[in-house]
Amino acid sequence: MTSDAVPLPVVDAWWRAANYLSVGQIYLLDNPLLREPLTPADIKPRLLGHWGTTPALNLVWAHLNKLIVERSTNVVYIAGPGHGGPGVVANAWLDGTYSELFHHIPLDGTGMQRLFRQFSFPGGIPSHAAPETPGSINEGGELGYSLVHAYGAVLDNPSLLTACVIGDGEAETATLATSWHLNKFLNPATDGAVLPILNLNGYKIANPTLLARIPDDELEALFTGYGYSPRVVAGGFDGEDPMLVHERFAVALAQAFDDIAEIQDAARNGGSTARPKWPMIVLKTPKGWTGPKVVDGLPVENTWRAHQVPLATVRDNPEHLKQLDEWLKSYKPEELFDDEGRPVDLLDADRPRGDLRMSANPNANGGLLLRSLSLPPLGPHAVDLTAEGRGAVVEPTRQLGRWLRDLIAANPDNFRIFGPDEVASNRLDDVYDVTAKAWQGEVLPTDEHLAHEGKVIEVLSENLAQGLLEGYLLTGRHGLFTSYEAFIHIVDSMFNQYAKWLESSAHVEWRRPVASFTYLLSSHVWRQDHNGFSHQDPGFLDHVINKKASVVRVYLPPDANTLLVTAEHCLASRDYVNVIVAGKQPTATLLTLDEARVHGARGLSIWDWAGTEVQGEEPDVVVACAGDIPTVEAMAAVQILKHEVPDLKVRFINVVDLMRLQDSAEHPHGLDSDDFDALFTPDKPVVFAFHGYPSLIHRLTYRRTNHSNIHVRGFKEMGTTTTPFDMLMLNDLDRYRLVMDVVKRVPRLRAAYAELSQRMDGERSSHRAYTREHGEDAPDVVGSAGLPFDVESVGVADTGGDNEG
Amino acid sequence: MTSDAVPLPVVDAWWRAANYLSVGQIYLLDNPLLREPLTPADIKPRLLGHWGTTPALNLVWAHLNKLIVERSTNVVYIAGPGHGGPGVVANAWLDGTYSELFHHIPLDGTGMQRLFRQFSFPGGIPSHAAPETPGSINEGGELGYSLVHAYGAVLDNPSLLTACVIGDGEAETATLATSWHLNKFLNPATDGAVLPILNLNGYKIANPTLLARIPDDELEALFTGYGYSPRVVAGGFDGEDPMLVHERFAVALAQAFDDIAEIQDAARNGGSTARPKWPMIVLKTPKGWTGPKVVDGLPVENTWRAHQVPLATVRDNPEHLKQLDEWLKSYKPEELFDDEGRPVDLLDADRPRGDLRMSANPNANGGLLLRSLSLPPLGPHAVDLTAEGRGAVVEPTRQLGRWLRDLIAANPDNFRIFGPDEVASNRLDDVYDVTAKAWQGEVLPTDEHLAHEGKVIEVLSENLAQGLLEGYLLTGRHGLFTSYEAFIHIVDSMFNQYAKWLESSAHVEWRRPVASFTYLLSSHVWRQDHNGFSHQDPGFLDHVINKKASVVRVYLPPDANTLLVTAEHCLASRDYVNVIVAGKQPTATLLTLDEARVHGARGLSIWDWAGTEVQGEEPDVVVACAGDIPTVEAMAAVQILKHEVPDLKVRFINVVDLMRLQDSAEHPHGLDSDDFDALFTPDKPVVFAFHGYPSLIHRLTYRRTNHSNIHVRGFKEMGTTTTPFDMLMLNDLDRYRLVMDVVKRVPRLRAAYAELSQRMDGERSSHRAYTREHGEDAPDVVGSAGLPFDVESVGVADTGGDNEG
Repeated sequence: MTSDAVPLPVVDAWWRAANYLSVGQIYLLDNPLLREPLTPADIKPRLLGHWGTTPALNLVWAHLNKLIVERSTNVVYIAGPGHGGPGVVANAWLDGTYSELFHHIPLDGTGMQRLFRQFSFPGGIPSHAAPETPGSINEGGELGYSLVHAYGAVLDNPSLLTACVIGDGEAETATLATSWHLNKFLNPATDGAVLPILNLNGYKIANPTLLARIPDDELEALFTGYGYSPRVVAGGFDGEDPMLVHERFAVALAQAFDDIAEIQDAARNGGSTARPKWPMIVLKTPKGWTGPKVVDGLPVENTWRAHQVPLATVRDNPEHLKQLDEWLKSYKPEELFDDEGRPVDLLDADRPRGDLRMSANPNANGGLLLRSLSLPPLGPHAVDLTAEGRGAVVEPTRQLGRWLRDLIAANPDNFRIFGPDEVASNRLDDVYDVTAKAWQGEVLPTDEHLAHEGKVIEVLSENLAQGLLEGYLLTGRHGLFTSYEAFIHIVDSMFNQYAKWLESSAHVEWRRPVASFTYLLSSHVWRQDHNGFSHQDPGFLDHVINKKASVVRVYLPPDANTLLVTAEHCLASRDYVNVIVAGKQPTATLLTLDEARVHGARGLSIWDWAGTEVQGEEPDVVVACAGDIPTVEAMAAVQILKHEVPDLKVRFINVVDLMRLQDSAEHPHGLDSDDFDALFTPDKPVVFAFHGYPSLIHRLTYRRTNHSNIHVRGFKEMGTTTTPFDMLMLNDLDRYRLVMDVVKRVPRLRAAYAELSQRMDGERSSHRAYTREHGEDAPDVVGSAGLPFDVESVGVADTGGDNEG
Repeated sequence: MTSDAVPLPVVDAWWRAANYLSVGQIYLLDNPLLREPLTPADIKPRLLGHWGTTPALNLVWAHLNKLIVERSTNVVYIAGPGHGGPGVVANAWLDGTYSELFHHIPLDGTGMQRLFRQFSFPGGIPSHAAPETPGSINEGGELGYSLVHAYGAVLDNPSLLTACVIGDGEAETATLATSWHLNKFLNPATDGAVLPILNLNGYKIANPTLLARIPDDELEALFTGYGYSPRVVAGGFDGEDPMLVHERFAVALAQAFDDIAEIQDAARNGGSTARPKWPMIVLKTPKGWTGPKVVDGLPVENTWRAHQVPLATVRDNPEHLKQLDEWLKSYKPEELFDDEGRPVDLLDADRPRGDLRMSANPNANGGLLLRSLSLPPLGPHAVDLTAEGRGAVVEPTRQLGRWLRDLIAANPDNFRIFGPDEVASNRLDDVYDVTAKAWQGEVLPTDEHLAHEGKVIEVLSENLAQGLLEGYLLTGRHGLFTSYEAFIHIVDSMFNQYAKWLESSAHVEWRRPVASFTYLLSSHVWRQDHNGFSHQDPGFLDHVINKKASVVRVYLPPDANTLLVTAEHCLASRDYVNVIVAGKQPTATLLTLDEARVHGARGLSIWDWAGTEVQGEEPDVVVACAGDIPTVEAMAAVQILKHEVPDLKVRFINVVDLMRLQDSAEHPHGLDSDDFDALFTPDKPVVFAFHGYPSLIHRLTYRRTNHSNIHVRGFKEMGTTTTPFDMLMLNDLDRYRLVMDVVKRVPRLRAAYAELSQRMDGERSSHRAYTREHGEDAPDVVGSAGLPFDVESVGVADTGGDNEG
């Protein structure tokens, strides 16, 4: 299994070289090899970067190289303490990958000077591990997601090992603290392995860390309790010779690799089904190890003062300059780089070849490995309106679940569903016909759909579901995250960071497109029958559209067939974040599959059959809608209007792709101005029934000619545990209120407004009274009343007692 | 210490009564005491609620009652599995509190019927623990915040014990997983105690839970590793007699109370400074214990099928109706309630008196205990512009930190600061003159500002900082959460839930106002000098204003003196969420303290001295701004305009209270239409330099007369690690671009536009070139150039190398 061992002095040389290159990036504008005496002019004017975490990141990299060379293991390196950007970049340059990807930064003295200069420099590279960093799948800004990314990357990736360095600051974050439990979902037979290396350097920005100040027995108990087999390696304190630390860490790392191999062999060849106790390493080293010990009379190494730039005024303070010179020279650069500034041959022994270099591992540029999904036909799961009639009532997400079942069957190692215990609640449970929920723990006779190799991961943490899918996508696979609409805000910030990753990746030439991140939000604001105000929040859409138009897409399919078409489109797309909001409750199917395809492709259309306009004539009013429940209410409102004001010409527009509303200059999906005016008219009143907060529609349309005539109804933060129709009335989104809105805004109906609005108010009052008395909605709003086709039950049909969270 | 013991059969009777009342709430419209044969008409039409978690919540309540009666302990009960709403309400009714607070629900058969009917009924009460629930400080919708609320409640509350029941689903969430570490911040001498009771009933909605399927030795290792002394109590499985479980649980609970008393005594009287190993209990009971064992041939008790409503079709299915009847009668209601439906006297022995009842504990209605802050004078920390000149450069948050230091000194047990390791980075570290960071772990000689009784809590988890402050405020104290602007999105969802709590509380008559939740967001989007794109996101403001106008307030103080005034205002307020965005980098002070008071009170004002308008004449253009950096850029732009177009009449408006922009009909702080038109003119161009995403200003002003003339510049998602002025240019918010915006929009300047805009573009290009070459901003944008007062350095002054995250 192992070739000739890489000698530890070579590992040490690699480490010193990486440390030298890291310090150089933080400080030096020029004179990279110190061939001239160091002067203030060689120093950057703004000293930015984070030294504290870097030496340990470099240490781990150097040692992983040794094992990769010896064993040809397929390793992706994840730098949790992303502030250690200079370290990761330094190793990628030493690997040779950096120069291959960025030709202007060759592997010599010129390249080294440019490498140093560009770091945290205007027009250069960010100070953290980022999309620009070769070998990285983890942004190093917002902390806490390294371990969940590491686990996502190895699912269905049996040869891969992610070595995940976790900072002790990061380890305090919420997401990291629950990520340790992900070992319970990892199947040693068909997934790869994660080796967590918790680097306790003792400090975060300005404080000691929790885990660095508990005794070793608590530390070991904690990770034993999390289900790991922990090993603690400590070293480098009080000036200890690094060679002694190399010896200890090499043993621990090799042992961890051996243990992983043994676990995988037992599962793959020995038939073991026990949940393994995977190894993990706690590596205790001084913060800012090998940097200045004392600066201006204050201790720096092994304190929080080493977090960022230990010598802060090098340009102006000769003593600092002298210390920097000594610090850089302490790595003996003359032994590490030749006269041309190239890494010396000695380092070759610790450098893996080709794709085995961690900075070049194709798993960290997953688009290279991406295989397109095999998309099964939608037809078998479409609601057949020829046979069942327009308005056929189904649970939209259940239809989708059946298609997803076929999709999983057709893509057994390339697609996964992640959710916070809501896959069945969101009506996708038909997928369990062909797969199960991943589960390595104890299984009881009463359990259903649990298996080692299940393709669905359910864990009651939106953060974990989000992070796993990110890791899975970034390593070249496909997937879906399904969640309740309200609680998706839990991952607002993770979404932000992922969207920023995609925004930045688009400018990195060598990054290949990956499959889009698709959210399916169900159990939405209008149907929280079991739950209450806490479960009612449609604001994720507002959050999402703050990100660049080049990466975000928002869809509100009005029925099951449109949902199928939308999901197919999203899962085939690349490099986007798609958000689909769709109901799980029985709802009328409004479009045939073919109509849905056209509607989906258009993003919004006029539905002649739902409106009352006359071909060739201007409508009196536009009734627009987006979202399944608002669509039914808007249709019902038009039916009431048809009865009350027979000659009123209503144009009916349904919006499925929300970004169509924005101007084409703002979003690639946006309608241009003429098209928008043609659809929404330049001057007629528009009454818009919207799924979310009304302000979002105004925000998207404020540049439109007719904006001042757009009147939007939506969620206005009125919520409680009540019936579906009562929720609509509470928020003034019900059919009666929409009728009043229309009549109020059409000038020639002004005379009729008072009488009609009194009657509509009467309807509302009697509905409210009915609901308060009976505890359920009156049949005429549950049923098909007012809709232009004969269906048994439509729209806000009520079902009690099912399995919701 | 203990009075006569409450006999366990009485505890069991209480438990049965609470279970009976819980099932009744889920199912019964009428016939609450089953004095008539149960018929379908007695059953609610919509069966909503969650049974699975309820019996264990009731068990813990009954046992806590016993210990409170015996020891007079001051206990707040936190129901983490908030889905168990019926249980908490049942106990509050049995306590008598419910009837005292809701007079229409007396403690008799009539009250019982109303109690049952209102639950999850239109117009009634929510199905979860909520603000409407007596004794609750934890909303039971979005899971994961129980334990952090429990810890927040006991800080500086030495007599209080929070008994926190944690569900095993909830225990998988990110926030809960890191909350266990909060024991490291709890000072046994001056804080109260938290007793976590992890109830493992085995299942979440549709899956087993992680912690229920690991062996006891891992479970005990985990909690030992978290620093607790765990005890596992299991019982009730396979039909085990509940009395045996009562016996075991009573012993474990009493032991835990003893251990807590011993720990507190050792710290308070014995001088112990060791970090205690606080007790915690793992309580394993069957999900849906005492409910139907089998329904329709499938096992229900002790499976996920017991999560919600075990018998789903009681109205239509006679077998289900029969099972419900048997289930209700299994609790022997005739032994528990007298002929009038009142709880029998037997139960009195398990009922604490007065405020010791957990549902009546004043700590859970913190406004009852609220003492106003003693607010020290701002004067000593104001920048004296008489002496230093307008434009005196200071770090605004550092001035605030000095005032906060005085505030902490004046309110030693009533005010705390919480932050994710960013208090010093955000320049508030002068508070360490009078307090420290709470820390119970090991302290090394190199450490600074760590102490058992510190009033600052720093932990690298925004979730913990948020939750601790929520718990602290809801129990009647005051505080501040300071964080980086970009990462505050981590708590978007927690903010949502807290805002909803405040929105709902406003309608609960007996809830007393609590101190507002105040965010101080610094290290904002425009000054991420050390960091990059991942640290640049001003979108929290967009998120916040989706919540009801009655609870949210947003402030963007332009300088240090206005920041002081704003902070004072926010910390004195009640029942709001205040968001303050303020810079920490050296910035010009623009207003005297007196001017700042007036400006703060107005929320926005015309700054004559910064504009060029002529009294009594209409301005040509309005230049508006909000945020510290945009304010300086807007002022600089006006100075350029003054030079370039001397006769241009520019009105200069600065906005500190963002909600002033909204209409008075939408927000209580909103300007009415006439005032807005008077300030912003009905028809002149408005160029608005804004701190955040431009769409927010449009969203707030879209109803305004002059909206179509408002042109906004702000963050447009262009970011990287670069210099401050380069960031402004990247986003078209720099002074030169603002000048071009103005000139383009003033009709009479149209002829001059081409030439001027070419020059301005030239300025931008030369700045970019300078920055790319030198790695820092050119002196004329760092310094005072263009501002109407002589200062050494203003606005975007650059400081490198300081201690940022």
